[in-house]
Amino acid sequence: MTSAPAPPPARRHDPGARSFASDNASGIHPEVLAAIIAANEGHQTSYGGDVYTAHLQETFRAHFGPTARAYPVFNGTGANVVALQAMTDRWGAVICTASAHVHVDECGAPEKMGGLKLLAVPTPDGKLTPDLIAGQAHGFDDEHRARPQVVSITQTTELGTAYTIAEITAICARAHDLGLRVHVDGARIANAAATLGVPLSTFTTDAGVDVVSFGGTKNGLLLGEVVVVLDPDIGAGLGLAYVRKMSMQLASKMRFISAQFDALLSGDLWLRNASHANAMALRLAAAVGSAPGLKIIRPVEANAVFAVLPAAATARLHERFDFHVWTEATGEVRWMCAFDTTEDDVDTFAAAIRAALAP
Amino acid sequence: MTSAPAPPPARRHDPGARSFASDNASGIHPEVLAAIIAANEGHQTSYGGDVYTAHLQETFRAHFGPTARAYPVFNGTGANVVALQAMTDRWGAVICTASAHVHVDECGAPEKMGGLKLLAVPTPDGKLTPDLIAGQAHGFDDEHRARPQVVSITQTTELGTAYTIAEITAICARAHDLGLRVHVDGARIANAAATLGVPLSTFTTDAGVDVVSFGGTKNGLLLGEVVVVLDPDIGAGLGLAYVRKMSMQLASKMRFISAQFDALLSGDLWLRNASHANAMALRLAAAVGSAPGLKIIRPVEANAVFAVLPAAATARLHERFDFHVWTEATGEVRWMCAFDTTEDDVDTFAAAIRAALAP
Amino acid sequence: MTSAPAPPPARRHDPGARSFASDNASGIHPEVLAAIIAANEGHQTSYGGDVYTAHLQETFRAHFGPTARAYPVFNGTGANVVALQAMTDRWGAVICTASAHVHVDECGAPEKMGGLKLLAVPTPDGKLTPDLIAGQAHGFDDEHRARPQVVSITQTTELGTAYTIAEITAICARAHDLGLRVHVDGARIANAAATLGVPLSTFTTDAGVDVVSFGGTKNGLLLGEVVVVLDPDIGAGLGLAYVRKMSMQLASKMRFISAQFDALLSGDLWLRNASHANAMALRLAAAVGSAPGLKIIRPVEANAVFAVLPAAATARLHERFDFHVWTEATGEVRWMCAFDTTEDDVDTFAAAIRAALAP
Amino acid sequence: MTSAPAPPPARRHDPGARSFASDNASGIHPEVLAAIIAANEGHQTSYGGDVYTAHLQETFRAHFGPTARAYPVFNGTGANVVALQAMTDRWGAVICTASAHVHVDECGAPEKMGGLKLLAVPTPDGKLTPDLIAGQAHGFDDEHRARPQVVSITQTTELGTAYTIAEITAICARAHDLGLRVHVDGARIANAAATLGVPLSTFTTDAGVDVVSFGGTKNGLLLGEVVVVLDPDIGAGLGLAYVRKMSMQLASKMRFISAQFDALLSGDLWLRNASHANAMALRLAAAVGSAPGLKIIRPVEANAVFAVLPAAATARLHERFDFHVWTEATGEVRWMCAFDTTEDDVDTFAAAIRAALAP
Repeated sequence: MTSAPAPPPARRHDPGARSFASDNASGIHPEVLAAIIAANEGHQTSYGGDVYTAHLQETFRAHFGPTARAYPVFNGTGANVVALQAMTDRWGAVICTASAHVHVDECGAPEKMGGLKLLAVPTPDGKLTPDLIAGQAHGFDDEHRARPQVVSITQTTELGTAYTIAEITAICARAHDLGLRVHVDGARIANAAATLGVPLSTFTTDAGVDVVSFGGTKNGLLLGEVVVVLDPDIGAGLGLAYVRKMSMQLASKMRFISAQFDALLSGDLWLRNASHANAMALRLAAAVGSAPGLKIIRPVEANAVFAVLPAAATARLHERFDFHVWTEATGEVRWMCAFDTTEDDVDTFAAAIRAALAP
Repeated sequence: MTSAPAPPPARRHDPGARSFASDNASGIHPEVLAAIIAANEGHQTSYGGDVYTAHLQETFRAHFGPTARAYPVFNGTGANVVALQAMTDRWGAVICTASAHVHVDECGAPEKMGGLKLLAVPTPDGKLTPDLIAGQAHGFDDEHRARPQVVSITQTTELGTAYTIAEITAICARAHDLGLRVHVDGARIANAAATLGVPLSTFTTDAGVDVVSFGGTKNGLLLGEVVVVLDPDIGAGLGLAYVRKMSMQLASKMRFISAQFDALLSGDLWLRNASHANAMALRLAAAVGSAPGLKIIRPVEANAVFAVLPAAATARLHERFDFHVWTEATGEVRWMCAFDTTEDDVDTFAAAIRAALAP
Repeated sequence: MTSAPAPPPARRHDPGARSFASDNASGIHPEVLAAIIAANEGHQTSYGGDVYTAHLQETFRAHFGPTARAYPVFNGTGANVVALQAMTDRWGAVICTASAHVHVDECGAPEKMGGLKLLAVPTPDGKLTPDLIAGQAHGFDDEHRARPQVVSITQTTELGTAYTIAEITAICARAHDLGLRVHVDGARIANAAATLGVPLSTFTTDAGVDVVSFGGTKNGLLLGEVVVVLDPDIGAGLGLAYVRKMSMQLASKMRFISAQFDALLSGDLWLRNASHANAMALRLAAAVGSAPGLKIIRPVEANAVFAVLPAAATARLHERFDFHVWTEATGEVRWMCAFDTTEDDVDTFAAAIRAALAP
Repeated sequence: MTSAPAPPPARRHDPGARSFASDNASGIHPEVLAAIIAANEGHQTSYGGDVYTAHLQETFRAHFGPTARAYPVFNGTGANVVALQAMTDRWGAVICTASAHVHVDECGAPEKMGGLKLLAVPTPDGKLTPDLIAGQAHGFDDEHRARPQVVSITQTTELGTAYTIAEITAICARAHDLGLRVHVDGARIANAAATLGVPLSTFTTDAGVDVVSFGGTKNGLLLGEVVVVLDPDIGAGLGLAYVRKMSMQLASKMRFISAQFDALLSGDLWLRNASHANAMALRLAAAVGSAPGLKIIRPVEANAVFAVLPAAATARLHERFDFHVWTEATGEVRWMCAFDTTEDDVDTFAAAIRAALAP
């Protein structure tokens, strides 16, 4: 191999830049980066035939129980569309909330790539309930309606809240009674475990969940998600492998995705990262919750703060900070914290919020 | 952020393992890894709003001319399916060879995800010609036949050969005359530039190519490909961005893909890597080409050697080395070299081949 | 051709059977049947190259104005999915009501066959409004949301009501301002013209509608619908023809579909049939509207009556008559009249309803 | 219902016009038309809940054996795409000939609507063989290749020839050994039975075929095809019904499709029609086969004659007769006979051919 001296790599960005726009504005956790480096060098069989992907199976079984099968993919949309295809017949439909990421933020990938029909249910708080599910679970003997086959919930939700263990258990029980399977979009599943204070399996495997889209990117990875199949019948044999490949989600150098999850999940990094992000959101909420003119309008149960404040204040803040206006009409904004958000970041931002709100 | 002492990362593989199965059995080039590290820390706008992706546009314009637009994606199948969707109407068809990767190695992703009809033409050598294209370019006024709209060629080909500049120019001229656009599957496009000894634009932009799937993974990246659009009308406005997103190929932390290409393309790393891989294939061919019982059956114009040898010899080699049997019936095998294949690797393997062939 | 004496054809059904389940429980109007017979014998170029399909263009231009192009298809789902595909890019979304036939009664064909994303809006009365449309018309610069490109309304609606001319005009104006096109699912469009008392063009072409799915089956045909394209840019050239063919909606013996529409639309049969069906619904509503225990809960503006009555009464009626329970929970039922529903049918049914309601 | 006197129906075409372009240039057989008329009047449950569709099940069981289930659809492309979707997983591929109608004449409907990958095999004579099938039946443990799951053959073939019973039996045996199912595109299956002189079941059910697309349109119907499922596991429960509906192939007034098949299949009309069409093709071949300058280049085993003649002669014939040039380069043309082609038609055409060939 060439031994030409490498030019110094170009750092083109300001490493001090901070954002509250999304937890995926963050970078790579040092331990994850170290794992990538450790997995480098030498040759490994591509497309998942490497030792890191083999070991990953054990890691996921340790977290999700003995039936868990782990299929690394590139991103969250990919994980969801792979999972939902594997869980449905060609004529299947998926019950989700009207605020679900699969419904509003994936450019129609479920429909356009997976041919999935979404039955999107309006909710006040971004959470499905057994009754809302039952309200969609009809027409099973009627070819005129795409057949409901899956319930998809997001944990933590798109609105920064977490389903309780009891809520998920009740959803799974009702869904199974109705002949439906349960999928969890777990782009922020670690944040849920952190806020619930229980192992990952408690509100998934043990609660009756069938498939999880396990998020890594937002919790410190360069990139990577895993479709975790808990029901042995789903995507059996090579089924899920075929779906992943045809869905353009099969990484050739998979060792580098698997090694990142190794770093995340072999120890407690997944929990440390998520707990920290959650704590930062709570710190932010505490710091600004009583500010006049501002109202925190959803429970802070993960790493997001949803607040309503005057448009003028939002405009002033936007001069210095990046974050999303969630609902233009109501003035609702979303502030996200990540594994690498610092207490200083929060305190600086909180001060700026208070200043922006001042008359 | 947590300051808990990081456990040492787990290296689970043998960094001395060598393979001739595929160039994607390789790892990450040190300069690419350095670029990932340099791009880390701090927050950057996700989904391509970062400075690395912005800079990437200049880099690709420098290589492909002022009209080039660069859309990073995850993998080669993704790049191809995104590109081909953007180049076709819903009723379009794509002319390719029967040995094309899009036809034989992508699990039907072009059809299943992109709804693309492939018109796959048998060829002796994996290369399309103007006449083969013309033979498929009929029925334009006939709704019974999916409308031919794109010619897709692979450079270098799946058979380790390279189209000449004249060949591509002639293909583009005929295709354009027929109202067709030209796509290059460039999973190994750097190897082509290296073997042709010309800039990347010479056999793409200047030859009339409209869109390139630019490969990075096989040339030293952790992962990453880029859809390079040369025709300003293709995927104009947000068109290609929509196709990329709905095709599950939009990376949230895109800076880490773009930074890798920055390392690859801002200097000459792309060419050094490809030239080295090509040289290793030629070294291997030279070392075993005269061995009794072995026949190299295709020109070695990139980083692959295709040879026919007795099944017993193949079996013996397989005990120690990983490589693909290309055609069981004929005994044809494929040996791939990568950017990190060393002269020692080649010499060791060549000796083993000669030994396996010995009576 | 064989001259063997034909056996008498088998009539296996009771021609006296009457149903209020759907207007498609009806048969073929005698004038339509006569047209089929007249179009028989001799050879005609298949797939629309016949003289009936050629003449149909004039007929539709007479009704819808000089830009109208008519594409016969098999059924309503086919008409809708062909129309919507022709009106959208691959990344497009369609705004419709949550009660729209395309959303609830087509087994996901729009999503599964057309790759269409539906943005289904809850409404109290099955009607879209400019404001409801505007509420969905956002994110045009955002690849994360499938791009809203079409508004689809149903005329008459699935709830037996008709949009007024002013309502459609306002919808089209707002939609066009927003860069959206307007599609009308006109499975019962003739009933709308009858109830509005205006020509078909008044609430379509003149109001700004771009494409109509023109219904024939429910208005006296054996089978047949027509995609009527009013905007010359939509599906231009062979575009719509390709979409129709690839959507499995191209009839080989198209003369027999076109001849039926000839019978329907060359005179006033379309209007006579629809007016009669509407009148029968009004007759039914008048006959039972004041019955104790029954409440007609939607305006009767077409050929449907929606009523709420006690479940026991519904059960008693179901012993003798076929009709649909629309909403189990509320006891809402739907009674449909057709072109061949007679005054006697209505009077008999009304008497039965009153009897069923009696204590 | 309105009692206005009906205007005389418009006959816009010349009932004496004759064509050799396709058997679907023909009209409706009088016995089929009589059946449509007999099925008219009164109300019948839509979408297949009528007595004609119920009775059709018996009819098909009589022809195809006790496991046969019959699903009426609109057209041949619809029948094929419904059948093949029901026979495959999402990741499935279909082995067919390169001349198969599904591959060359359906505008990519299998790919674009069904997401099916076609593995199209070049053949000299339009027939698959066990060995050609085996040549495609690999990669079952390889997610990179869409999984071969179905063999689709056309009977009679697109080239006017018929598979023998032994050929189909051998194909089915090999296919089943390989874990593949067998589909017959039977757009002209009656012509095959006529030429083979055996019942329909002999070369389908008894030979091991799993699903048949049973053609009616080309054999005397107004329109209509039936997906006949012989393997009880395929599309079990409501599976096939869902696929048919979502594929836009579910007729609301299904009684009129089913009644046509009743007329065709309850007696021997299907066989009379097909035998006659076959006989006319043989008569034509006999009349011109020895003409100087003309060569019949394929066995005449059904209702088509494939001949090569000078382009000048073809041009002269085209002034008076409609037929297809099959292969421009070779001067090959196709002449089709239908159930309603008369001996006079043939004799007139044959004389014209001889005249056109004269120096």
